[in-house]
Amino acid sequence: MKYYFKNILGNFALDRNFSLMEEVSRQDNLESVPKEKLPQALWLFKNKRFYPQFYQKNLELTKIAIRNSVSPDQLISNTIASITEVDKSANLFSKRLREWYSWHFPELAEKVASQDRYAELVLNKSRQELQRELNLKESLGADFSPSDLEEMKLVAEEVLRLLELRKKHEAYLEEVMKKYCPNLQDLAGTTIGAKLLELGKSLRHLAMLPSSTIQLLGAEKALFRHLKTGSRSPKFGVIHDHPLVQNAGKDKGKAARMLADKLSLCARLDYFRGEFKAPEYRKELEEKLK
Amino acid sequence: MKYYFKNILGNFALDRNFSLMEEVSRQDNLESVPKEKLPQALWLFKNKRFYPQFYQKNLELTKIAIRNSVSPDQLISNTIASITEVDKSANLFSKRLREWYSWHFPELAEKVASQDRYAELVLNKSRQELQRELNLKESLGADFSPSDLEEMKLVAEEVLRLLELRKKHEAYLEEVMKKYCPNLQDLAGTTIGAKLLELGKSLRHLAMLPSSTIQLLGAEKALFRHLKTGSRSPKFGVIHDHPLVQNAGKDKGKAARMLADKLSLCARLDYFRGEFKAPEYRKELEEKLK
Repeated sequence: MKYYFKNILGNFALDRNFSLMEEVSRQDNLESVPKEKLPQALWLFKNKRFYPQFYQKNLELTKIAIRNSVSPDQLISNTIASITEVDKSANLFSKRLREWYSWHFPELAEKVASQDRYAELVLNKSRQELQRELNLKESLGADFSPSDLEEMKLVAEEVLRLLELRKKHEAYLEEVMKKYCPNLQDLAGTTIGAKLLELGKSLRHLAMLPSSTIQLLGAEKALFRHLKTGSRSPKFGVIHDHPLVQNAGKDKGKAARMLADKLSLCARLDYFRGEFKAPEYRKELEEKLK
Repeated sequence: MKYYFKNILGNFALDRNFSLMEEVSRQDNLESVPKEKLPQALWLFKNKRFYPQFYQKNLELTKIAIRNSVSPDQLISNTIASITEVDKSANLFSKRLREWYSWHFPELAEKVASQDRYAELVLNKSRQELQRELNLKESLGADFSPSDLEEMKLVAEEVLRLLELRKKHEAYLEEVMKKYCPNLQDLAGTTIGAKLLELGKSLRHLAMLPSSTIQLLGAEKALFRHLKTGSRSPKFGVIHDHPLVQNAGKDKGKAARMLADKLSLCARLDYFRGEFKAPEYRKELEEKLK
């Protein structure tokens, strides 16, 4: 409110006739404006002559405020959201490819588990070549015309392109995060760090959160179920996939709590442009969790 | 069962010593096997000497049966399922692109509604160029480094590639359907026809369905809700999007019933390799629905 009021006062500076207003708007703090001058300033608000100028100046200030509100936060959350969507689509197409190509060569789906290798083989090798390589005598699949197989290969291509896009997104994400939140990136890793930023809405907000909240970011569903029905409380959200938690054996809950604690410190260091302390924290955690 | 039994009998033909079995297996119909010879044949089943041969022959026959069970049905339903998935992914990426790029140039999302045009503009033009073209004085968006914009362009590329893939799939689908089910393709159109085939599992099954079922294919959810709760019964499934139904004004239900009737005939004509009568049916429907 105070900010808004000051903006409005600032508008008067546009009109050179009002030296009073210029003086007021040059003050950093509204409290420092001489009290006897305020009524006069407030009276000027009622002058319709300045309405278009108010409007213009306000628009400008708002535009600048909007522009400044954009930070790497938005880039990071969009990138990680895009990665999630790329994964989803790649899974969708991979499944479709397996089902479709299995009418031609059902044995391949059993032999090859990884998405990208399967797509590569479909794209680059014929069934005969694959049979020879995989030591299969014959296939139960049907024979299709080249144009039918072409259509399956298009899907295989799409899978590979999506996996390629994912890699590019990841490299970019790492670069942005190393600049913007080096501590968080180092301790949490790129993917988990970005997910935390996405769930926490911004680095600023993440830095303000208690570490117990950071521990449970991404486990909201389980948390609310716990609060509602009294089922067991969740021990971790997205940090579940972190190596320190994964390798903690039975003490996963404890590891998650300790990691969240340090991650919270990292977010604060990053937000307030502090030192690079993440490797230190990591060592500490590793020793404690041994 | 009879078929299976005959197969087993057929296996004996492998062993040249059993002329009886050869004779039996050469018969088209089990009933034509001389009755006095059957007990002897059945006794031979107990001979463990033939077990591996039984197994081998059966495997062969099964493989042939599996291979022959593949028809254009599978190609069509996989293609239409793939098209649905491509649409889903393209929507996902389009939305992401709009959200992401709007931090840079929010005005564009308002001005351009179509997915492909938006992606093309993001990919090929800078904000300055677009501002000039769209007669915008300035943008509220933030400035980003080229590497940040590059990442958004990757998503735009992906959108365009998916739309390209969709077109290829559609062309292929039309080609396959024109060969396999020309009547259905002509009257229903490629997309709706393929969806009907997908929902009906196969042309054979679709041809066996009553027209009232064809009318409601794709509206299963509403149908079961109707049966369970007594809500209003659905009037159409996937054929809702057909031009004849769309242009029927208030009589959409009636149009759907009549169209489903003719589609059912089309499926039967196609399955039993009948004449090409779809244009005739279309004319008839158009006249009746005028």
